[in-house]
Amino acid sequence: MIIVLKPEATKKDADEILKQISDMGLKPLYLPGTERTVLGALGDERVLENLHLDNHPLVERVDPILTLYKIVSREIHPKDTLVKIGGASFGGDTFTVIAGPCAVENREQIVQTAKAVKNAGGHCLRGGAYKPRSSPYSFQGLGIEGLKLLKEASAASGLPTVTEVLEVSDVEYVEKYADAFQVGARNMQNFRLLKILGQMHKPVILKRGMAAKIEDLLLAAEYIVTEGNPDVILCERGIRTFETAMRNTLDLSAVPYLKKHTHLPVIVDPSHGTGVRELVLPMSKAAAACGADGLMIEVHNNPKAALSDGKQSLSPEQFSELMHGIKPFVKAAGRTLPKK
Amino acid sequence: MIIVLKPEATKKDADEILKQISDMGLKPLYLPGTERTVLGALGDERVLENLHLDNHPLVERVDPILTLYKIVSREIHPKDTLVKIGGASFGGDTFTVIAGPCAVENREQIVQTAKAVKNAGGHCLRGGAYKPRSSPYSFQGLGIEGLKLLKEASAASGLPTVTEVLEVSDVEYVEKYADAFQVGARNMQNFRLLKILGQMHKPVILKRGMAAKIEDLLLAAEYIVTEGNPDVILCERGIRTFETAMRNTLDLSAVPYLKKHTHLPVIVDPSHGTGVRELVLPMSKAAAACGADGLMIEVHNNPKAALSDGKQSLSPEQFSELMHGIKPFVKAAGRTLPKK
Amino acid sequence: MIIVLKPEATKKDADEILKQISDMGLKPLYLPGTERTVLGALGDERVLENLHLDNHPLVERVDPILTLYKIVSREIHPKDTLVKIGGASFGGDTFTVIAGPCAVENREQIVQTAKAVKNAGGHCLRGGAYKPRSSPYSFQGLGIEGLKLLKEASAASGLPTVTEVLEVSDVEYVEKYADAFQVGARNMQNFRLLKILGQMHKPVILKRGMAAKIEDLLLAAEYIVTEGNPDVILCERGIRTFETAMRNTLDLSAVPYLKKHTHLPVIVDPSHGTGVRELVLPMSKAAAACGADGLMIEVHNNPKAALSDGKQSLSPEQFSELMHGIKPFVKAAGRTLPKK
Amino acid sequence: MIIVLKPEATKKDADEILKQISDMGLKPLYLPGTERTVLGALGDERVLENLHLDNHPLVERVDPILTLYKIVSREIHPKDTLVKIGGASFGGDTFTVIAGPCAVENREQIVQTAKAVKNAGGHCLRGGAYKPRSSPYSFQGLGIEGLKLLKEASAASGLPTVTEVLEVSDVEYVEKYADAFQVGARNMQNFRLLKILGQMHKPVILKRGMAAKIEDLLLAAEYIVTEGNPDVILCERGIRTFETAMRNTLDLSAVPYLKKHTHLPVIVDPSHGTGVRELVLPMSKAAAACGADGLMIEVHNNPKAALSDGKQSLSPEQFSELMHGIKPFVKAAGRTLPKK
Repeated sequence: MIIVLKPEATKKDADEILKQISDMGLKPLYLPGTERTVLGALGDERVLENLHLDNHPLVERVDPILTLYKIVSREIHPKDTLVKIGGASFGGDTFTVIAGPCAVENREQIVQTAKAVKNAGGHCLRGGAYKPRSSPYSFQGLGIEGLKLLKEASAASGLPTVTEVLEVSDVEYVEKYADAFQVGARNMQNFRLLKILGQMHKPVILKRGMAAKIEDLLLAAEYIVTEGNPDVILCERGIRTFETAMRNTLDLSAVPYLKKHTHLPVIVDPSHGTGVRELVLPMSKAAAACGADGLMIEVHNNPKAALSDGKQSLSPEQFSELMHGIKPFVKAAGRTLPKK
Repeated sequence: MIIVLKPEATKKDADEILKQISDMGLKPLYLPGTERTVLGALGDERVLENLHLDNHPLVERVDPILTLYKIVSREIHPKDTLVKIGGASFGGDTFTVIAGPCAVENREQIVQTAKAVKNAGGHCLRGGAYKPRSSPYSFQGLGIEGLKLLKEASAASGLPTVTEVLEVSDVEYVEKYADAFQVGARNMQNFRLLKILGQMHKPVILKRGMAAKIEDLLLAAEYIVTEGNPDVILCERGIRTFETAMRNTLDLSAVPYLKKHTHLPVIVDPSHGTGVRELVLPMSKAAAACGADGLMIEVHNNPKAALSDGKQSLSPEQFSELMHGIKPFVKAAGRTLPKK
Repeated sequence: MIIVLKPEATKKDADEILKQISDMGLKPLYLPGTERTVLGALGDERVLENLHLDNHPLVERVDPILTLYKIVSREIHPKDTLVKIGGASFGGDTFTVIAGPCAVENREQIVQTAKAVKNAGGHCLRGGAYKPRSSPYSFQGLGIEGLKLLKEASAASGLPTVTEVLEVSDVEYVEKYADAFQVGARNMQNFRLLKILGQMHKPVILKRGMAAKIEDLLLAAEYIVTEGNPDVILCERGIRTFETAMRNTLDLSAVPYLKKHTHLPVIVDPSHGTGVRELVLPMSKAAAACGADGLMIEVHNNPKAALSDGKQSLSPEQFSELMHGIKPFVKAAGRTLPKK
Repeated sequence: MIIVLKPEATKKDADEILKQISDMGLKPLYLPGTERTVLGALGDERVLENLHLDNHPLVERVDPILTLYKIVSREIHPKDTLVKIGGASFGGDTFTVIAGPCAVENREQIVQTAKAVKNAGGHCLRGGAYKPRSSPYSFQGLGIEGLKLLKEASAASGLPTVTEVLEVSDVEYVEKYADAFQVGARNMQNFRLLKILGQMHKPVILKRGMAAKIEDLLLAAEYIVTEGNPDVILCERGIRTFETAMRNTLDLSAVPYLKKHTHLPVIVDPSHGTGVRELVLPMSKAAAACGADGLMIEVHNNPKAALSDGKQSLSPEQFSELMHGIKPFVKAAGRTLPKK
């Protein structure tokens, strides 16, 4: 940790801080300059948190030398983590595709969509039973009834399932009916929920928040993994910027950046990431090209009648085209699309 | 609602949509143009949600004519709502100041800080028992123990209290020990939590999310108020932008905008909104000047030793200066600072 | 154009505006509603600019129905435009790569880099003689001397050249020494410069500004094309967001969006777009995958000693790896890399 | 300067860099740690620019200890700079108001508006002769004819004038006809223009770019001042964020931040900064409250008919209300509004 003192700090102030650093078991460094004095502290910076040096009135700035996340970091754990959702695996040589509707709406819709996803070559079924909606007047999901329908659709199609948890009390139901938890962008920093999911035995797909830096995403994953659940899949789904032509700005550069800095699998959601149907296929190809481990795609058996996010949903035919369209890019990336 | 059709839409497509609009009880409008056909739907646009016209493959764009929020809107309810936290009131002619530490750390800290806040002229005490922290290695709050200490500090100082709820299960404890709920920026769209708070009988301070548009904030408030709790105070606390000199960009223009569009009280948190101690006083003056109903300020009896956010915390002396410093601006704004 | 009136507007106010619309030769529409009156104007919306209806005190909002850009729009001109820089062509079935150093520094550097670019299979040479630098203390480019060296490097390597113009007075020199003009992100809305370039007879590479919406970029291109120069290549090079892990956020979704809405070629600069050397190759692959017509890459014969942007520059070996690495993705996209 | 090495850097690599630092006349520091080696360089960091250490393949990160701007910094030059535009002064105890139309449109408009500004108590007249407009189909200004009309309006009202320069060739005309140059947000990093203005003898109002960090603004000012012109006034006018309710997000916290870090005067433009007429008065009050040295306000004798930006323009009556409305806040801030 590098500690830059304010111009008015004296040698005595510096000595006092150096002693605190040394008392924490770290190596202190004193670097007097003509305009500023700089101090250093070498060792595990997490213990320095307790000194709260950034609160000190004579400290201008504290810069960490090391990353704040540890166990999700590739530096600590260089080998790729492989996460399995039912028979689908993420993080190895495969390129794995999760698809399904934004929300479970009724039996026919989810079962038909599941079969279409399976037929087109998709590997996992998604479908929300609990929906976070900006407006209280929008459709909020079917709840447990939706989870049961999702399980039926899983049985009918043979696909494992992923569904969103909005709240701690949803966790037990989702664990009962689905194969993986999804944490949505709005909940990426719902730390209580993350901790509970860290104690579960099913994988977690963690979506990046709309205002979350990549480091925030990795720290959120660290919350889950430190509690004991190593099976976390990170998902880039767009951030909020000034651009209004798309719903969000899909930050694909986060994919190779994450793959370099963490051992966790990374997938991309181009449906929410752009909010525009026509952009889903090209951005899926780009995701495969830049090293993603898979995709999450919105598919609805009848997008025109979808109760939410229909504008970005693909029809079964369009999804089938997508599965064909990404093939050469998946191959060029040295990956394989697992067979149906 | 204005519906712009794609160039390829035919008269028949338009007629089909117009019929749907008319079937929902709204007045349909047909506006053929040389390059695009535009349709209109006049009436309560909330019922049109169910048509999901933005999903329609021949619809290019749907623009609402009216706001999506209703009962928090000043158009529906022109008179200012007055919200009371204990004896402190928000939304009338007063300018009301909530102050206290980021987190409750121990008895001495919270009791001393509470007394200092009271002596300096503050009207409400804040202090977190449950803390949302980006890193799992940071101090996470004292939990129920913290709530009990907050209540002691309230008794010792005579100040009503506000504290954050992170999760549905926190609600009953906070309702027992504190006078108002705070929903933090990371939870602004935790809709389940908002709904529960809408069923409680104590006021809610709702902070704007880091990536939340003003309309999102109003829709979040609508979640609470539609459930039956009218006592919501909105709080501007900075949004995330590219600027790195401050922790967030405090969007003060949101204050007069909100005061124009909603009847709910609006306060400003310049401590989180800037993250820089020296900016707290000038931005507090500016908040008073542009029409805010009050402030939320971080004060710590010993900022140097604070377990969180010390960098932006004021000492008791600095808070006392702030209470003096804002006086002429509060007066210029035609408000009064309630006496101790 | 859709014109939403304020609640207080009367029938008489509406009639007055409708008459103005009709006087401009457009078709006026009157849509009275229970809460708001909406007016419409159908026809070429550019003439409505002169009414300045958004200034009208009783107008709440004006929404255009049509795009503001016209001649760069694919709706007006559906066929792809092919732009040639020397023998390199952009916008057809090829995938064309521009490469070279950020700045021309000296003869050896630019000539060696040019040869390395040529040998690796690059198609155009870039190199700045006039450099826009945030700090006045940074290297500002060699000026005309740099242009002459660039021309020498072009002769030595056989590559056509692209170089940046900062200012109107640079245009004649660059036209004399180079094969194409580049307009940098900071100058995307230097409208005087755009107009002059619209009168030149060499192509223009127009980079997206750091805070420019895609529509702003298209309007900037419209400035050039309306003046008579049809040869504009658009370049996505990252926008400014809250993320600090990269220098900019490369908005690849802009590529398919632009390809859909304009007939102009679109290339990607992943060097400035990420600012991180390790991300250049994966984002180049992704650019090819999502439909870009080519790349602009920073290459320096000795990145360690580069006078600017060395951190993101590739060495000749790394550039050679890039040209190999993108091949399968270019092929998967149905494109070809022109032979050396 | 703090230099963090990559984990793979050896002692020999470190020694090589330390020698380079020492050869530049700075004091080198060697700080080996268990996970990373950190180097330091103490002294004038501007000379280190030439080492381009951020390009070095074994360097992970370079953090400056000192600011990059020097002569505009308050640390170097603690006393406030006073800038005079005609008889109006900025940066002392006064609060000075520049007002006028976005663009000069015709004699009657600019002369009437000038008189109205003068009568209401404004101190300077603004009015654009050269207008930067996003669309080539919008009004582009009257050019030199506009400058002449502005001078007439100045004579008729007795107010000194400010007008925008878009390009180097505008500078001589503006110097001839107006009392101060304005550099618009889109040109804040038009470095060639800044350098020319640095050689002129009239003051420059430098507006913050839409994607410019505060540090970028200070570096842009440094370009002007290093060339010899000390009379620069900085202007906060809003930055681009995801919020769409306003045209820009006015970053008022930049005002006290700038006043702390630079000796140059700082004014606020709430007209462009919000783009919403109703927000101009409250944000003007807030600007005075947080320490601004003045305002720039759009006023038009007939906003309904304005050729640009009418939506945010005040009528003469509204401007007069503003001059009255800000009075108590200016007084509370310890400033005076110079008499007519």
